[in-house]
Amino acid sequence: MARAGTLTISPNSDHVSTLSRLADVVESRRDGNPDTSYVARLLAKGPDSFLKKIGEEATETVMAAKDANHEKIINETADLWFHCLVMLAHFGLRPEQVLAEKRRAKPPNVDINS
Amino acid sequence: MARAGTLTISPNSDHVSTLSRLADVVESRRDGNPDTSYVARLLAKGPDSFLKKIGEEATETVMAAKDANHEKIINETADLWFHCLVMLAHFGLRPEQVLAEKRRAKPPNVDINS
Amino acid sequence: MARAGTLTISPNSDHVSTLSRLADVVESRRDGNPDTSYVARLLAKGPDSFLKKIGEEATETVMAAKDANHEKIINETADLWFHCLVMLAHFGLRPEQVLAEKRRAKPPNVDINS
Amino acid sequence: MARAGTLTISPNSDHVSTLSRLADVVESRRDGNPDTSYVARLLAKGPDSFLKKIGEEATETVMAAKDANHEKIINETADLWFHCLVMLAHFGLRPEQVLAEKRRAKPPNVDINS
Repeated sequence: MARAGTLTISPNSDHVSTLSRLADVVESRRDGNPDTSYVARLLAKGPDSFLKKIGEEATETVMAAKDANHEKIINETADLWFHCLVMLAHFGLRPEQVLAEKRRAKPPNVDINS
Repeated sequence: MARAGTLTISPNSDHVSTLSRLADVVESRRDGNPDTSYVARLLAKGPDSFLKKIGEEATETVMAAKDANHEKIINETADLWFHCLVMLAHFGLRPEQVLAEKRRAKPPNVDINS
Repeated sequence: MARAGTLTISPNSDHVSTLSRLADVVESRRDGNPDTSYVARLLAKGPDSFLKKIGEEATETVMAAKDANHEKIINETADLWFHCLVMLAHFGLRPEQVLAEKRRAKPPNVDINS
Repeated sequence: MARAGTLTISPNSDHVSTLSRLADVVESRRDGNPDTSYVARLLAKGPDSFLKKIGEEATETVMAAKDANHEKIINETADLWFHCLVMLAHFGLRPEQVLAEKRRAKPPNVDINS
């Protein structure tokens, strides 16, 4: 598919993660011009517009993986995660909250520090 | 669903992003014991085991979003991203490559630096 | 996956389609015992239980098709359609209404009678 | 979405089910003109074109069900089943084989004839 929503961010020199910075960019587009910003357009249309993309990109990620096509896997996963960031922005949520969810120490058998 | 694959990582003090560290943890489980490690089990079973989860968790993310249930949105997105990290590990790919995909400067109208 | 919800119906001798008869069977289970009927169990649990299955089975159908595995394609499509029938029963809708949707004469270029 | 692939079939006067007749129509388009036939276009493009639609329409069906929007549920389910018929046609399979899968008598506890 077309590389919708590609974003440019400055070099990561300040210890803020790329994912956090991408989320910042997505949020900054919220009140942008729907004619020039893909993110503004999705957020203006409402949840169904980006939720539908999550289902679509998940299927395309699975198809790319079945083909073991590395370039496509990267592209489709990027599109999937990107539309997740748009969804999080819509609900006022942050990717840091998502990643924190995976850092909680249960079950203990997957604690890498022990 | 059960919080499968929750991981504990040490505090982020060394400027390596949480996502990168989660990917490191997933990779470190690759040759682990399938009886005690969920990630080792998925990777031992082969691609269909985690690809099926990507489709399932994407649907659950969409359902959580339709309910506007913030806690569920965070949980299901975490599960979706987690199974993507397992898929990336299977193919020897890194989340940094996925995020880099979104940093490329096209289309120009979404360049935040200009 | 396990062949959940396999149904036995008597031979189609009375000009009622197999799909309609499957829908009748699903509906007849609505008030059944959740302990012995998979359909009764899904309908008792509410929409999320079978909607999640629709996403899951759709992904498995796609994966079976990528493998060009005919037996799996048939099995997964059967599971997908079956959970759609459960969804339709939940909403008091019929498969005949779904098929009627596809019989409407637009666009004209796909009218096989012309 | 646009009602892609709507088909007109003559009244069901000969005891052949609507689903079988829709499958016949889809198959008859296989060697049609991709410029005028949506089915011919999908089949000419290859599996990824219609598999991607199966994932997309499944998600839209789930979203319509979360909204309890009956008209949308019917429309999206119709689109989902239609693209399944295109997939079956691609592999030389028939919907009768899919439905037969669900008629097999296991598990016994869902045998409606007993």
